[in-house]
Amino acid sequence: MRKILVIGSGKSTSYLIKYLLYKSTSENLHITIGDINLENAKKLIGNHKNATTITLDIFNENSRVEAVKNADIVVSMLPARFHIEVAKDCVTYKKHMVTASYTSPEMHALDEAAKANGVVLMKEIGVDPGIDHMSAMQVLDRIRDKGGKIILFESFTGGLVAPESDNNLWNYKFTWNPRNVVVAGQGGAAKFLQEGTYKYIPYNLLFRRTEFLDVDGFGRFEAYANRDSLKYQSVYGLDNIKTLYRGTMRRVGFSRAWNIFVALGMTDDSYTIDDSENMSYRDFVNAFLPYSPSDSVELKLRHALKIEQDDIVWDKLVELDIFNAEKRVELKKATPAQILQKILMDSWTLAENDKDMIVMYHKFGYELNGKKHQIDATMVTLGEDQTYTAMAKTVGLPVAMATLAILNGKIKTPGVQIPITKEVYEPILKELKDFGIQFNEKEVPYLGYNPLNN
Amino acid sequence: MRKILVIGSGKSTSYLIKYLLYKSTSENLHITIGDINLENAKKLIGNHKNATTITLDIFNENSRVEAVKNADIVVSMLPARFHIEVAKDCVTYKKHMVTASYTSPEMHALDEAAKANGVVLMKEIGVDPGIDHMSAMQVLDRIRDKGGKIILFESFTGGLVAPESDNNLWNYKFTWNPRNVVVAGQGGAAKFLQEGTYKYIPYNLLFRRTEFLDVDGFGRFEAYANRDSLKYQSVYGLDNIKTLYRGTMRRVGFSRAWNIFVALGMTDDSYTIDDSENMSYRDFVNAFLPYSPSDSVELKLRHALKIEQDDIVWDKLVELDIFNAEKRVELKKATPAQILQKILMDSWTLAENDKDMIVMYHKFGYELNGKKHQIDATMVTLGEDQTYTAMAKTVGLPVAMATLAILNGKIKTPGVQIPITKEVYEPILKELKDFGIQFNEKEVPYLGYNPLNN
Repeated sequence: MRKILVIGSGKSTSYLIKYLLYKSTSENLHITIGDINLENAKKLIGNHKNATTITLDIFNENSRVEAVKNADIVVSMLPARFHIEVAKDCVTYKKHMVTASYTSPEMHALDEAAKANGVVLMKEIGVDPGIDHMSAMQVLDRIRDKGGKIILFESFTGGLVAPESDNNLWNYKFTWNPRNVVVAGQGGAAKFLQEGTYKYIPYNLLFRRTEFLDVDGFGRFEAYANRDSLKYQSVYGLDNIKTLYRGTMRRVGFSRAWNIFVALGMTDDSYTIDDSENMSYRDFVNAFLPYSPSDSVELKLRHALKIEQDDIVWDKLVELDIFNAEKRVELKKATPAQILQKILMDSWTLAENDKDMIVMYHKFGYELNGKKHQIDATMVTLGEDQTYTAMAKTVGLPVAMATLAILNGKIKTPGVQIPITKEVYEPILKELKDFGIQFNEKEVPYLGYNPLNN
Repeated sequence: MRKILVIGSGKSTSYLIKYLLYKSTSENLHITIGDINLENAKKLIGNHKNATTITLDIFNENSRVEAVKNADIVVSMLPARFHIEVAKDCVTYKKHMVTASYTSPEMHALDEAAKANGVVLMKEIGVDPGIDHMSAMQVLDRIRDKGGKIILFESFTGGLVAPESDNNLWNYKFTWNPRNVVVAGQGGAAKFLQEGTYKYIPYNLLFRRTEFLDVDGFGRFEAYANRDSLKYQSVYGLDNIKTLYRGTMRRVGFSRAWNIFVALGMTDDSYTIDDSENMSYRDFVNAFLPYSPSDSVELKLRHALKIEQDDIVWDKLVELDIFNAEKRVELKKATPAQILQKILMDSWTLAENDKDMIVMYHKFGYELNGKKHQIDATMVTLGEDQTYTAMAKTVGLPVAMATLAILNGKIKTPGVQIPITKEVYEPILKELKDFGIQFNEKEVPYLGYNPLNN
């Protein structure tokens, strides 16, 4: 039996474990799931003969090292900041490792040692990052292989609620980490390239400079810019590209309404509010508006942000019950962002039968034989239920497939890496199709942002 | 001869030195001015018999200690971050010390040692901080001495251009550190108290929530909130106050126009712009606007911020020449804030004969015998020329007066302190009147923010 150690058994591991169990007999696998809390792990493996659970505290060096030494390959599904000690052990004891998280500088620093020890440290092989890398590189490489020159690349991902469960005015529910949604875009201007020019959008305009995207069968979406669209410019081989933009997808109208929270300062995570515990939701809103002994919080808000009486964004605010004077915040010494998150979780938490959805949209603009072309590629994955979510599927399956491919020697280049080589993305994208995760490509007229030059 | 060591001879020391020289014969003083560069110091003392200059590098411990040991009292006019080593020497060698800068935590930590050694470390005795503390505490103490209960305190200061030199559409020129003006209000929400409620204004609304202030003989001003209005709440004895607000004064209309820079992200100091060196002013503006092959930067800006064609803010932008495609930024790897500062310095630098102005406005609301009252106190000081500025006068004179008062044993309570005790503020405010620095007080109806309760 080949021994796979999976560390962490949170929400995004259901499909990962399902896939590994499914393959365990034919591939001769034994899966050990290590976690501090084994409740979810036990539920996921049932009484499968090829799986066991072990209590594992990764801060206990002895038991962590012991678990790593006992495995042939390690999958870390811990929160990103906890991977590094596991990774160091993997390099030391010559075990391959797979995670879905972003590559930290500390992780990157292990590259040389990993190569010296022949260890594959595969990072960013979930959905975003992960499937975005693989699907983008497949098309980019294909265009370049036939002699095309890439002039535009735009890439968008959204974690959203499935259409059948989409029943609020925001067309949104929390399907990923709510905190990341509340603080998204903070910490500096968004930077990207448009027709050869660097462009910057400050946080307070980020949600007002959106772009529309139509996905066949799913209608129209909008996207706002990610903080750093240029992060993978060199990695993808796009140093001479004219337009490079990465964004986050929402249903149309979300961003304009969200900007109300941004404009009022409700997403600020840099200070705490005194006596937040005893505040009502209404008090919270009022803290960002001028004092008045008589004017209502509602009218002060409408006036401050010039919201007309018949504007739909108003109904979105009312739907969240933010003007409620009875509901208490109940969080001690909370930041505005923490309070807003709590208010949103009242309305945006998935109900028991709700399903989620992952949407991805790439645009590839290129020149070939003196002509400009564009390929648009879209992918939609729907969740099955609250355990087997689209998120767990799109994160977990590539991780699981990469793990098996490394075990089987199909992926063998050592070092710290992300899935941008053919060796990695070709077999995984092919296998993902069997699970319904596939991109629909279509040729569209190249538009770019400079129609006079097309 | 009593020996006064003045460290630093920058722009704000002209009046300080003039005053000390003026007093030197009658008070038996010798003034030593220490600086790395002695050019300005020599100009300021001329060939006065009671003054000498010494080359002093405060990072050279030996010469710093030697200079401190030779003095009876030390005045530090260095940038705020350089005071601490001088202060430690002063405590060690039992020399009093006076500065106009804010009290840092490191400085505050010297309090016990200063008291043990009988040393007065007087801080924040310039204009803001300084004259604001003294003038506020004088009125607050007077109200409390007659049994009044303070319910409102608002305090505003502005460093502006004098009316006779006010010849641009912004009614503004740089009279203090330009960098502080460009980044003012950044780094977190402004916090204050209004009628017993904490209020927060995010940076992107800071310049849209201004308050008007009328000063007799000088017309109308506006003020935006300082970051932390509550900083001196306990120090001033205002723990139970209902309304507490501190702000910065500008001429009316400045803030609305300034908000354009804020909204576009031009005041951001957190990242650098690639190739800023070769950018034109127009390119800089364009970096914050969507790409278009044909639309003008002007129309894109008007559209992004909804600026009507006949809005005066537009003329303010044009006056700054920000749409100029020929003028180069010329700064390498500069932040947006640094570039904006450069553009503004083209237009807002004081001309040779320009004069500056310091304006201060306090509002004191209080209850006495069941009735509500309000006192408004205003102070305006005009500069004489570019050496003897209003800034140098209002910063330097209180520092100089405090220095002499300490030398003469009139201020004798030891420890790290700011000028909020009668021992300090009474004699200094009295003497400042001889130099034309005085507050005009008037009783006005108490308005507060809750007229129904008045």
